[in-house]
Amino acid sequence: MTVELISVGTEILMGNIVNTNAAYLSEWCARLGISVYNQQVVGDNQERLAMAIKEAVTRVDVVIITGGLGPTEDDITKETAAMVMGMKLVEDKHTRKRIKEMLENSVFKDNIPDNNWKQAMVPEGSIVIDNNNGQAPGIIMEKDGKAVILIPGPPNELEPMFKNDIRPYLAKRNPDVIFSRVVKICGIGESQVETQILDLIDTQDNPTIATYAKTGEVHIRVTAKASDENTAKELVKPVIKEIKNRFKDNIYSLDAAETLEEVVVKALAKRELKLVTVESCTGGLLAGRLVNVSGASEVFSHGFVTYSNKAKRKVVNVDKTILKKYGAVSKETAKEMAKGGILTSDADISVSITGEAGPNPSEDKPVGLVYIGCYYKDKVAVKEYMFGGNRQKIREQAVVKALDMVRRIVEAD
Amino acid sequence: MTVELISVGTEILMGNIVNTNAAYLSEWCARLGISVYNQQVVGDNQERLAMAIKEAVTRVDVVIITGGLGPTEDDITKETAAMVMGMKLVEDKHTRKRIKEMLENSVFKDNIPDNNWKQAMVPEGSIVIDNNNGQAPGIIMEKDGKAVILIPGPPNELEPMFKNDIRPYLAKRNPDVIFSRVVKICGIGESQVETQILDLIDTQDNPTIATYAKTGEVHIRVTAKASDENTAKELVKPVIKEIKNRFKDNIYSLDAAETLEEVVVKALAKRELKLVTVESCTGGLLAGRLVNVSGASEVFSHGFVTYSNKAKRKVVNVDKTILKKYGAVSKETAKEMAKGGILTSDADISVSITGEAGPNPSEDKPVGLVYIGCYYKDKVAVKEYMFGGNRQKIREQAVVKALDMVRRIVEAD
Repeated sequence: MTVELISVGTEILMGNIVNTNAAYLSEWCARLGISVYNQQVVGDNQERLAMAIKEAVTRVDVVIITGGLGPTEDDITKETAAMVMGMKLVEDKHTRKRIKEMLENSVFKDNIPDNNWKQAMVPEGSIVIDNNNGQAPGIIMEKDGKAVILIPGPPNELEPMFKNDIRPYLAKRNPDVIFSRVVKICGIGESQVETQILDLIDTQDNPTIATYAKTGEVHIRVTAKASDENTAKELVKPVIKEIKNRFKDNIYSLDAAETLEEVVVKALAKRELKLVTVESCTGGLLAGRLVNVSGASEVFSHGFVTYSNKAKRKVVNVDKTILKKYGAVSKETAKEMAKGGILTSDADISVSITGEAGPNPSEDKPVGLVYIGCYYKDKVAVKEYMFGGNRQKIREQAVVKALDMVRRIVEAD
Repeated sequence: MTVELISVGTEILMGNIVNTNAAYLSEWCARLGISVYNQQVVGDNQERLAMAIKEAVTRVDVVIITGGLGPTEDDITKETAAMVMGMKLVEDKHTRKRIKEMLENSVFKDNIPDNNWKQAMVPEGSIVIDNNNGQAPGIIMEKDGKAVILIPGPPNELEPMFKNDIRPYLAKRNPDVIFSRVVKICGIGESQVETQILDLIDTQDNPTIATYAKTGEVHIRVTAKASDENTAKELVKPVIKEIKNRFKDNIYSLDAAETLEEVVVKALAKRELKLVTVESCTGGLLAGRLVNVSGASEVFSHGFVTYSNKAKRKVVNVDKTILKKYGAVSKETAKEMAKGGILTSDADISVSITGEAGPNPSEDKPVGLVYIGCYYKDKVAVKEYMFGGNRQKIREQAVVKALDMVRRIVEAD
């Protein structure tokens, strides 16, 4: 089954708001095994909206339109969609009663603006869906095997209405079941990941295999379509097995919802290890990622941001002569910072980051040069990286590599 | 001038990511006085993409296409757009050289995957724009008075490229001169800001006045259109003056490009003050925001992440009896943390954050409750907040309020 989404609203076209409804509906369609062919945003303009609906209806089975269902003059979605579907608008007594009850309990009770009743008009013969969080009802128009679905735009009206009424309707219409799994990889770039599985990508169309580049990570999604869930799962299984074989410990998770920092926190918690962070150029971003994990307090009690050389000396006892001889951005300083973190805390494992994030290098080191140190069981390892991108990007990549370094050292133990 | 935006990427249609690029570009077009007619998302499917481009080119002056420019087989934007525009792809020596240099400094240096070179192919006769944050260049194709612009999808590549190269290009094509100014406000919510200027919004159409809600902040943009810059500036001036009168010290900047952390760093630097951060629930995010300012080292030498109660005691000497009596999420603990930050560093001003970011409260405090302390000149102030949203959102709001508290205290001095 195929779907197109149309969001109506000049405020999206002006960039005032981000179109999160489209992401919400798309994710749900993917989960239901429905292919979303197109997302589109059009303004409050009847001619352009009519054209967009007309074209979408010819291309796909179901068109979902969100927004533009309110009481004001700008709200033209229902009128336009009914016109395109050749249905006339009639008053829905049940909806009128609901709106009346809502307004009688509101600030408008003594003086109900007339334009509110517009929301009780529905295309003749359509399915009307009660809105428990607002006045405008949802509407499903069916014709010639196609459906056009109208949902109010505010997310707090759209999401419950979708979950309770639209989702079951779509599930019933869709004969296919979709199953997908994600392999999350850290330590290899996207093009190298793809090169390593190009043969799989090229020879498969069910399941399909797609790679997604994230900062410092690559995700591979394997998606199968079948008539029942078990068949879809069986199609995915051997491909995941093969990918696991090829990427081994570069894979940090097989759970789409699990983040790298969650894996690190879990790995530490399992071994009852405590981590301390000592950050220079990333200035607390690594600690911030760890604390993002609910329950991080079990393994992460504190961290240091030692941005200046003085702070490196005073807070984590980095030797002055080392700072002088090698500079703050050096293998030696990264080692000292990691060691200092262990010595000034009760942690079992320490990770340090020092580097040149730019834009103006403070020592004679190139922008992008970063050292990550990790102290564990009386051994200290340091890795050197040369990251591309701007200040923010360099720092984000450093954080990912630091998390991955901790993961690998802990998991190998 | 009219524009349509096409975003390419199955991951947007699958709901894996929210289409923030479209919001970013739409906001910029609005600022440049360019009307965005349509936003569209299509998957990695050549036939559907070709159709979308073909239709868009007939409707508007400029089509901006983002995403699908990477090295993998899924990346078909350039090939498809060139085909629609009737241009053949040729290798761009300059881009090939840039890509080679980037890869030689990367982990791939010994084994560069062949598919990378695909990114050096450009439509013959097009304008090629260097990408300083990635491999794929931007491209502008001009034909019959229309333009098709291709920009890489990752926001950290798209945004600088848009700012440096695409924005001036669009501004030059657009005959109207647009001038806009932004008032950045912290400390009042969006609906309250809007209520306070509703009379201005309702009575104006040149300049237009629009509010944009950001996390913990509200930006008001005043935009005038005229035939020359001076006229546009004169239209904007009195409105800005009126807004300044209404919001006074809730305004932290009148410079669109200036961030709250930059204002804080500047205010501290001007008075030669050093700041120390002591964070619990925000776990380093505040320090991370400060370090994001190039040159932050002048005013920020180090910070503490004291996530556990033990760390609060050991690292910044929070009194055990206070933690026991009032809990970690309390006015009293926030005070102690701020004071401890001053005592264990050479800073002049200290800011502390302690709160319940959820989802599972550890003390009997409600999720969203956050205390922010600030110690300066032997006085300690604490503010209590109740933030909505998820864990991440709560922490981000806390960081903004902490920055704003430092700003207000320092600027009032």
